[in-house]
Amino acid sequence: MFFHVKELQYHAKPERPDPLFAKQLQEVLGGQFGEISVAMQYLFQGWSVRGNGKYKDLLMDTGTEELAHIEMLATMIARLLDGAPVGDLEDAAKDPVIGAILGGMNPQHAIVSGLGAMPADSVGNRWTADYIIASGNLLADFRANLNAESQGRLQAVRLYEATNDRGVKDMLSWLIARDTMHQNQWLAAIAELEAKENVVVPSTFPRQLEKREVSHVLFNFSEGDKSAAGRWANGPTMDGEGTFKYDPCPAAYGDKPKLKPAPPYIHDTLPAALRHNDLPPHLG
Amino acid sequence: MFFHVKELQYHAKPERPDPLFAKQLQEVLGGQFGEISVAMQYLFQGWSVRGNGKYKDLLMDTGTEELAHIEMLATMIARLLDGAPVGDLEDAAKDPVIGAILGGMNPQHAIVSGLGAMPADSVGNRWTADYIIASGNLLADFRANLNAESQGRLQAVRLYEATNDRGVKDMLSWLIARDTMHQNQWLAAIAELEAKENVVVPSTFPRQLEKREVSHVLFNFSEGDKSAAGRWANGPTMDGEGTFKYDPCPAAYGDKPKLKPAPPYIHDTLPAALRHNDLPPHLG
Amino acid sequence: MFFHVKELQYHAKPERPDPLFAKQLQEVLGGQFGEISVAMQYLFQGWSVRGNGKYKDLLMDTGTEELAHIEMLATMIARLLDGAPVGDLEDAAKDPVIGAILGGMNPQHAIVSGLGAMPADSVGNRWTADYIIASGNLLADFRANLNAESQGRLQAVRLYEATNDRGVKDMLSWLIARDTMHQNQWLAAIAELEAKENVVVPSTFPRQLEKREVSHVLFNFSEGDKSAAGRWANGPTMDGEGTFKYDPCPAAYGDKPKLKPAPPYIHDTLPAALRHNDLPPHLG
Amino acid sequence: MFFHVKELQYHAKPERPDPLFAKQLQEVLGGQFGEISVAMQYLFQGWSVRGNGKYKDLLMDTGTEELAHIEMLATMIARLLDGAPVGDLEDAAKDPVIGAILGGMNPQHAIVSGLGAMPADSVGNRWTADYIIASGNLLADFRANLNAESQGRLQAVRLYEATNDRGVKDMLSWLIARDTMHQNQWLAAIAELEAKENVVVPSTFPRQLEKREVSHVLFNFSEGDKSAAGRWANGPTMDGEGTFKYDPCPAAYGDKPKLKPAPPYIHDTLPAALRHNDLPPHLG
Amino acid sequence: MFFHVKELQYHAKPERPDPLFAKQLQEVLGGQFGEISVAMQYLFQGWSVRGNGKYKDLLMDTGTEELAHIEMLATMIARLLDGAPVGDLEDAAKDPVIGAILGGMNPQHAIVSGLGAMPADSVGNRWTADYIIASGNLLADFRANLNAESQGRLQAVRLYEATNDRGVKDMLSWLIARDTMHQNQWLAAIAELEAKENVVVPSTFPRQLEKREVSHVLFNFSEGDKSAAGRWANGPTMDGEGTFKYDPCPAAYGDKPKLKPAPPYIHDTLPAALRHNDLPPHLG
Amino acid sequence: MFFHVKELQYHAKPERPDPLFAKQLQEVLGGQFGEISVAMQYLFQGWSVRGNGKYKDLLMDTGTEELAHIEMLATMIARLLDGAPVGDLEDAAKDPVIGAILGGMNPQHAIVSGLGAMPADSVGNRWTADYIIASGNLLADFRANLNAESQGRLQAVRLYEATNDRGVKDMLSWLIARDTMHQNQWLAAIAELEAKENVVVPSTFPRQLEKREVSHVLFNFSEGDKSAAGRWANGPTMDGEGTFKYDPCPAAYGDKPKLKPAPPYIHDTLPAALRHNDLPPHLG
Repeated sequence: MFFHVKELQYHAKPERPDPLFAKQLQEVLGGQFGEISVAMQYLFQGWSVRGNGKYKDLLMDTGTEELAHIEMLATMIARLLDGAPVGDLEDAAKDPVIGAILGGMNPQHAIVSGLGAMPADSVGNRWTADYIIASGNLLADFRANLNAESQGRLQAVRLYEATNDRGVKDMLSWLIARDTMHQNQWLAAIAELEAKENVVVPSTFPRQLEKREVSHVLFNFSEGDKSAAGRWANGPTMDGEGTFKYDPCPAAYGDKPKLKPAPPYIHDTLPAALRHNDLPPHLG
Repeated sequence: MFFHVKELQYHAKPERPDPLFAKQLQEVLGGQFGEISVAMQYLFQGWSVRGNGKYKDLLMDTGTEELAHIEMLATMIARLLDGAPVGDLEDAAKDPVIGAILGGMNPQHAIVSGLGAMPADSVGNRWTADYIIASGNLLADFRANLNAESQGRLQAVRLYEATNDRGVKDMLSWLIARDTMHQNQWLAAIAELEAKENVVVPSTFPRQLEKREVSHVLFNFSEGDKSAAGRWANGPTMDGEGTFKYDPCPAAYGDKPKLKPAPPYIHDTLPAALRHNDLPPHLG
Repeated sequence: MFFHVKELQYHAKPERPDPLFAKQLQEVLGGQFGEISVAMQYLFQGWSVRGNGKYKDLLMDTGTEELAHIEMLATMIARLLDGAPVGDLEDAAKDPVIGAILGGMNPQHAIVSGLGAMPADSVGNRWTADYIIASGNLLADFRANLNAESQGRLQAVRLYEATNDRGVKDMLSWLIARDTMHQNQWLAAIAELEAKENVVVPSTFPRQLEKREVSHVLFNFSEGDKSAAGRWANGPTMDGEGTFKYDPCPAAYGDKPKLKPAPPYIHDTLPAALRHNDLPPHLG
Repeated sequence: MFFHVKELQYHAKPERPDPLFAKQLQEVLGGQFGEISVAMQYLFQGWSVRGNGKYKDLLMDTGTEELAHIEMLATMIARLLDGAPVGDLEDAAKDPVIGAILGGMNPQHAIVSGLGAMPADSVGNRWTADYIIASGNLLADFRANLNAESQGRLQAVRLYEATNDRGVKDMLSWLIARDTMHQNQWLAAIAELEAKENVVVPSTFPRQLEKREVSHVLFNFSEGDKSAAGRWANGPTMDGEGTFKYDPCPAAYGDKPKLKPAPPYIHDTLPAALRHNDLPPHLG
Repeated sequence: MFFHVKELQYHAKPERPDPLFAKQLQEVLGGQFGEISVAMQYLFQGWSVRGNGKYKDLLMDTGTEELAHIEMLATMIARLLDGAPVGDLEDAAKDPVIGAILGGMNPQHAIVSGLGAMPADSVGNRWTADYIIASGNLLADFRANLNAESQGRLQAVRLYEATNDRGVKDMLSWLIARDTMHQNQWLAAIAELEAKENVVVPSTFPRQLEKREVSHVLFNFSEGDKSAAGRWANGPTMDGEGTFKYDPCPAAYGDKPKLKPAPPYIHDTLPAALRHNDLPPHLG
Repeated sequence: MFFHVKELQYHAKPERPDPLFAKQLQEVLGGQFGEISVAMQYLFQGWSVRGNGKYKDLLMDTGTEELAHIEMLATMIARLLDGAPVGDLEDAAKDPVIGAILGGMNPQHAIVSGLGAMPADSVGNRWTADYIIASGNLLADFRANLNAESQGRLQAVRLYEATNDRGVKDMLSWLIARDTMHQNQWLAAIAELEAKENVVVPSTFPRQLEKREVSHVLFNFSEGDKSAAGRWANGPTMDGEGTFKYDPCPAAYGDKPKLKPAPPYIHDTLPAALRHNDLPPHLG
């Protein structure tokens, strides 16, 4: 169960409106690695933890904080849209700045949301739960979380570079710091779980059931051997189970596949059509 | 540029058809963490590497291998669908097994693909590029890759548990082993980059520009303090920049947001309507 | 900013696992009118209110409650999935009930979420922000909310009819009651706003600017005149601006559209190709 | 069965081309509340009416009219695109207006549709049936319809404000008037059904089966009590079944959820990993 | 502008309900090549024809007919759903046929649409305008149409094979016949346009501007030379512009791509990180 | 199994960066008819061929080549993005060209992909497998392929017209030539299959089972008789099975549909509500 307080977790006031930047800022609200994604990802992971330990609590702590970040961004975007102009080609022709705004802002910020933030990314794709993951395996999921915070901080930093507005920069510096903490915390949680289990997820699958002869081999499927120079091709493997090998000319272990004809009620192409004319006329 | 050889990288022959399992196996072909996802993710990352070092080669090696895994799964699914029945309720009534197949198989395997594999997951959602990530920052992206291989191996293991078919298990044991290698290789690449840069992505953003006072604090937004017991709330931070802190009662740093009214041409609710009647009648 | 308490708003314990019902119950968690939709819809509307009156507070109250409903459903679904079987056609053949489960449950509940709830509907479509609306106009949006609660309660009632599990029914009876309240509250808020403004949204557009001659006419575009018998075709209009009229044979007010040829750089079909042969050979 | 006449229901001729406005106008053709949405929504509702009364006729009348509105908008958009320029950065550099057009128009209007309208919204999201609803319950669905016409008229009005083209304004004034009628008609139909049934949908669920103690209570989940001042927290409820109550401090009725461990074949995190280290080191 | 008549274009009465077949039949209503797709595709193409000749009329004739086919299928599906059961695992356990229905039917047919047809395919994916094409080039589009009718008739035939219900077969035999006509008509229209223009779309691009040396060569990118035996590798080309050639060992015409480093404000991986360690340790 | 070589199939070097054109060029990389679509479509068709003849080889040859085209476009787009600016409204105000770039470029090219190509179209919609088709029937699928190459070449030609950059034009002239070949090859393959089977797909359905009386009739559902003048309404049909007919006034063969009431557990609108008031008051 949740409670809401009216105050924002941190300030969200720009110096001045900027509808073009409002459009860009949508990325970290409603994009693949925006705040909706991390909020929903952590909460769904938390609700699915089968056991009630500290990991569940950590997920609920962080997921709940991310809801506050959605709120901050929604507020900031609404303010960046204050008084956004509407207009057509005639207006665009009169003033290059108005033209750039009319051409470059997200038209849905005027037509659809009435100068409010949208659950969408910087090109207008609506947020989708395709973005999130909760597998029930915490080591797998904490890696998903570390990735999300890495991508998210990277995007926030790129947006920081793209604005001169001190109010926007101030808020982004908060979000960037929180992403720093969240990368640190998932790294810590990952280290704990890797120490208890193994670095290979899931650790519970008996290793003798996999084809161990290819568990530590890098296949060189792209011509050139620069990849032979990496740590991944030399020395002990990260899971402590063997030594990295490099196969410069990977062979095919399987046969050419031949599929049986489909039954007649499927109405695929008839085998006769396929067999017919298979020899080139000049060879037939 | 790519070349194709007709032989499969590894065998893909089931002992017997099983249209219900064909439906399930679609998950690791066309689902969020299926082979299409990793192939496209690694290739797009590789094509975007700005520099021509070993990381680009590694990405192209692995992305190209994943194309072969799509092919193996497509072949296996087609064979699991060999002779799949079609029918209606009358057929279902006659034989419980036929009924279970007709009710449980993916109807599109008959109607749409004509007993072929589909670029879709186990419930029929078509594959979407929403699933993949290529950010230009390799440390961020290798974390995405490690996550993808962790989720992918987990799903392959779950499917291994769900079948008794020795042919299917044999192929899955290959794919699981390759996922073992791929987790190992991304772990190795991550270790290299973390050693060169820092564990916090992106490492190039000046740390003094973020709100450092909240860069290492766990906020307890979910009642109860179990999360205080974790490594993430005690001891030095993973980035070597400080000490983890735990804030049991996080405060709001911002104000209650007040947004300005929209201009009349937006036709949002009039401020008058909002202000009017704000006091309860019995208090007014 | 939000806080989470660990206790559920209401109990979410089934009498026994039922993976098929878990699949169905996803509809009111992650479907078009599931709890994710209403939570996100109310919160986005609340964050966009331009003014700080009681409507914003009402939206935040209710949006925050809906987060608790997501949590209840996620918990219930996880419990309905307790110990869900996995298996293939051989298992299905042995036991019709196992066959029905294996054929009928959502395979992603095992393969993807590891027996956890998913942000998806009852056929596996991932939740999308396409489902929600926040326009900045509160009367419009409260009508969206009333619709959402009407559809949502209807779906919850249909699910109530579909189970014999007393634990599930108990939880649904809570959610149904809350939907009753929410329909009541949006009806009350709508009544208030309609009294202040007008029933036609937006009330701020000058009525003389619309083609008033067709503002109150029902056009009979589907042969037969049963629709002439409704309130919508007789008597004063709901907006108090006129009288309903019925036009049994609606005329076209416009011309046949003729579009100009595209410029050559667009490479549409050449006008010559279009003009050529336009007369039937037997008439030419 | 349908017949088409070549004449448009109303004129759709702009004074001059305006590719930027063409992009914006797509919203009311192919957006969430565009004409495709209402056409498909009313037709699907009509086809599903179980009974052949006036409601079915009304739905078919209106759904068929909306097809004509799609046609008008498609024609208008094609004309706004007449002679739209193509070009690259060099062209943009030469002339700010050309630059604004090239930067701001939807590139698919040139590349994909060849200067034709698209089944997409103003940012290019393709129309999806996620937007529509047909539940079989007419009171629920008429509320969906009233919402659709409210959002649709609001968007048309915003577009009216954004153009100076008298031809476009003329067509929009027609569509706005029709939206006036459609709001009126759904209001009339809703009033009829509410009088026959009850305001709470569905009216057929026995009220004693819901948790009546929470059917009329507003829970104050967002700190502050402004929402206590509304009609929804005072006086008789809209369904005539009770009195609104306000709960300033909502309690949790449920327990902290504890989920059972998953079976081993699911390979979730092992309970051992979860239990381990649960006490903080400084407390252990 | 459109008019609707209440009578169906053809009968749509099954002998008996069959909820499983109702689910399958959704494919040709709301799937990629269902009736919604062809209706919308032809209408959008028709509305975009720049010229008013017979092609526009043909498109409007056929698009309007397809609306009637949507209606027939919606009616048939509603009747196949008559009295569809609801229930949970207990019900499934009692009766294998009920179990097969409960496991195999689309749960949204009960929960969401209330026994009505849905704008979705046979696995529940909602219809999307991603499926359709209208390019402004009629030869290109008529090929899209021929494909749509080919895929659509194939799916209808597969469904015909999957049912014993004489009412359903009767309706499908109508739709299959109409697909026969529509394939014939698009073939005729294509033949006309190919005769006027050329078989290569668009015919208006000056052939000397393309790299003519590769305009008629089959590159053998998949090992083995069976494809050398086809008409496409021997004899005059279909466009009358040359002779088919077969290149057994296609060469790369381009260089290895080297991309410049990104500017610092993008925060991609630093070139230093990329250059570092590029030589293998055992070679360094 | 696949191998990659580092060299591009053809050059992909622009004369100068152009972020606006990079956005447009995404259409033929990740749009509906971009290179991802044709690569995936041909490969999935190839993997599903049930038989091992030349058609499978042809599909694998061409699908593998298309992977090289994705690579060329990804490289070109990355180079067009070299040094793309970031900035806000202040920057836009200073320089109209910078303003046009900031307003017109895809913001995700900076924020999300870090100046790399994306698996998306020119407005940012992510690539989806909704775009592709593999039905198991080769004649149907080769028609899909001919359509894809027709739409794809049309789009490439439109992009060729939209740029002055000689490097871009050079690469496009290669892709356009390959599309010429691919149209030629699918035309050749179609001709072969049509000669073996029949022009109507699928050819294996017994023609006497369709309603032959409507297999060759054009129904005039759009007022006006211009379509009577086409080849499709006169002379022998393309399948050699009859003569085209034109029906100027198509009749309805079916009845008005009447659906049975839903069972009470579905909670659709009660029949009583539907029957009530069906007669107009002035007629009652």
